[in-house]
Amino acid sequence: MKPIVGITMGDAAGIGPEVIAKALAHREVYDVCSPLVVGDASVMKNALRIVKKDLSVQSLDDPAKGKYQFGTIDVLDLHNIDASKLQIGKVQMMAGKAALEYIETAVKLTQQNKINALCTASINKEAIKLAGAKVPGHTEILANLTNTKEVTMLLISGNIRVFHVTIHVPLSKVSSLITKESVLKTIKLAYDSLRTLGISDPKIAVAGLNPHASDGGLFGPEEKEKITPAVEAANKEGMKAYGPIPPDTVFVRANKGEFDAVVAMYHDQGHIPIKLLAFESGVNVTIGLPIIRTSVDHGTAFDIAGKGIADELSMVEAIKLAAKMAGVKMASKR
Amino acid sequence: MKPIVGITMGDAAGIGPEVIAKALAHREVYDVCSPLVVGDASVMKNALRIVKKDLSVQSLDDPAKGKYQFGTIDVLDLHNIDASKLQIGKVQMMAGKAALEYIETAVKLTQQNKINALCTASINKEAIKLAGAKVPGHTEILANLTNTKEVTMLLISGNIRVFHVTIHVPLSKVSSLITKESVLKTIKLAYDSLRTLGISDPKIAVAGLNPHASDGGLFGPEEKEKITPAVEAANKEGMKAYGPIPPDTVFVRANKGEFDAVVAMYHDQGHIPIKLLAFESGVNVTIGLPIIRTSVDHGTAFDIAGKGIADELSMVEAIKLAAKMAGVKMASKR
Repeated sequence: MKPIVGITMGDAAGIGPEVIAKALAHREVYDVCSPLVVGDASVMKNALRIVKKDLSVQSLDDPAKGKYQFGTIDVLDLHNIDASKLQIGKVQMMAGKAALEYIETAVKLTQQNKINALCTASINKEAIKLAGAKVPGHTEILANLTNTKEVTMLLISGNIRVFHVTIHVPLSKVSSLITKESVLKTIKLAYDSLRTLGISDPKIAVAGLNPHASDGGLFGPEEKEKITPAVEAANKEGMKAYGPIPPDTVFVRANKGEFDAVVAMYHDQGHIPIKLLAFESGVNVTIGLPIIRTSVDHGTAFDIAGKGIADELSMVEAIKLAAKMAGVKMASKR
Repeated sequence: MKPIVGITMGDAAGIGPEVIAKALAHREVYDVCSPLVVGDASVMKNALRIVKKDLSVQSLDDPAKGKYQFGTIDVLDLHNIDASKLQIGKVQMMAGKAALEYIETAVKLTQQNKINALCTASINKEAIKLAGAKVPGHTEILANLTNTKEVTMLLISGNIRVFHVTIHVPLSKVSSLITKESVLKTIKLAYDSLRTLGISDPKIAVAGLNPHASDGGLFGPEEKEKITPAVEAANKEGMKAYGPIPPDTVFVRANKGEFDAVVAMYHDQGHIPIKLLAFESGVNVTIGLPIIRTSVDHGTAFDIAGKGIADELSMVEAIKLAAKMAGVKMASKR
């Protein structure tokens, strides 16, 4: 049986509904999963008009009633958008509130095994704040809903998969957060995650922190004191970890296929190469949650919402990856 | 008259002679300049055999005697390599000493206006150390030889040109080196340099330091307190500076041609995108010297030296750029 991937519709005023509509016009998506939009059927119908795709929308109240056949978009319909009042391209409480409800509903269904994986369209930080959200983003919301303390982000783009030791912290704080333990923990997370992606014995490159990975200690002590010990500890535990490798060559080598993933020390070390290689087909995976969750690598893009020009490639890849991860998980449980 | 570009041969045991031999087999190089290798004719002859190019070598004792025609490689011959003793792919004092002499000679000739620009092949840090060099690299040697105090590096690759506010410093020290003054100085350097490249009113993007350029102060104060004031000061002086722009999108935008250059805050912020976009055609320019100097974006690569497989694209681009900059300089003096 194909996994059911729940696709939360995101902010109804952003490009989410459009990129979902375009993505579900890719027949190959239905080859790998049963996609279920968790959102609002009226908004999806309008999105189909915007992107000029000849598909129909089926409004459902239960995932079990889905057709899951190419040509029909199955929508678990929460009826929480008043289409006559929706202002495309604008921050509004209604859309923020609805977006939060899609996520809550989808998480519940996943926990009940009615959905096998989540793929989330983008939400708007200001809109969810207007709707009363206490945390700034998707990842935090999902962590709260699933009582998860530690999550991290995996970025995927083409050949490159990146895990981060630190993410949303000032650059000046990064060095103090790089410890043998934090690096080793991220290598292990990478190892486990890559296995859930079906890579049985992954090769993990570990980036240095400093220019030229410090060139033998010339530009900082972290490589010798923190990163090398972490790599050695990972090797002792049987993981294929390599490094520290100079930050400006490790992504070139990963891009050529030499490694299955790169452990980056900080946000932009990992994000700069990922965004540069494939601004439109990048996918995020939240690692550490008890449920599978992928997401698109872009925001709500209010400036182009409603125009039908938003690229759906990231959404297509995010759905496919959620399906793949769900398949590996389902197989391991048999 | 075409500018004479002096190409220092670099470490004779590395890939320098080979990439020069391959580069000078590109006819278009001779369309834009008169290339003169400052090195050893016997080594260049051997390099031609290695790369299997049907060119001849002319040994000279004066740049004025060069043919400067495609088909002949003109070498200002310093006779400082004993070809029978040279061990390709190995660190050795003889090669380090010779490499230093090429640079000294070429700088002198440039100061005497017998050469209009320098393009340097790679040298080996350990070899020049064996030969008594007191400083670690090319840039420092050139700064010493020309009594220059402050130099910085411009990296060029395809559409992207990157200037760095800080370079070879530990990542933990970067934040303290980001000041309104240091950022403004780099913007000005970028402005002046781009004009010497023939761009009369350059658009300069200034990267943020922190994730998402701090997202309104969320991830660090440097954007608001240092970078924004520097950008505003540059604008007041009539320069088109933009930013701070999130580090993971600024290079995507520059790559699409939106800006003429990016001011990066630290080494890897600039080096990761440059190397990823064009590992083999990147070019470095040393900014701040009284002479024009470009260089290849790779090392001596002892592991592949002597095999004839090293890619010459970076050398070709570095020679052409030196020629272009010399042309602009010569025109401005007329």
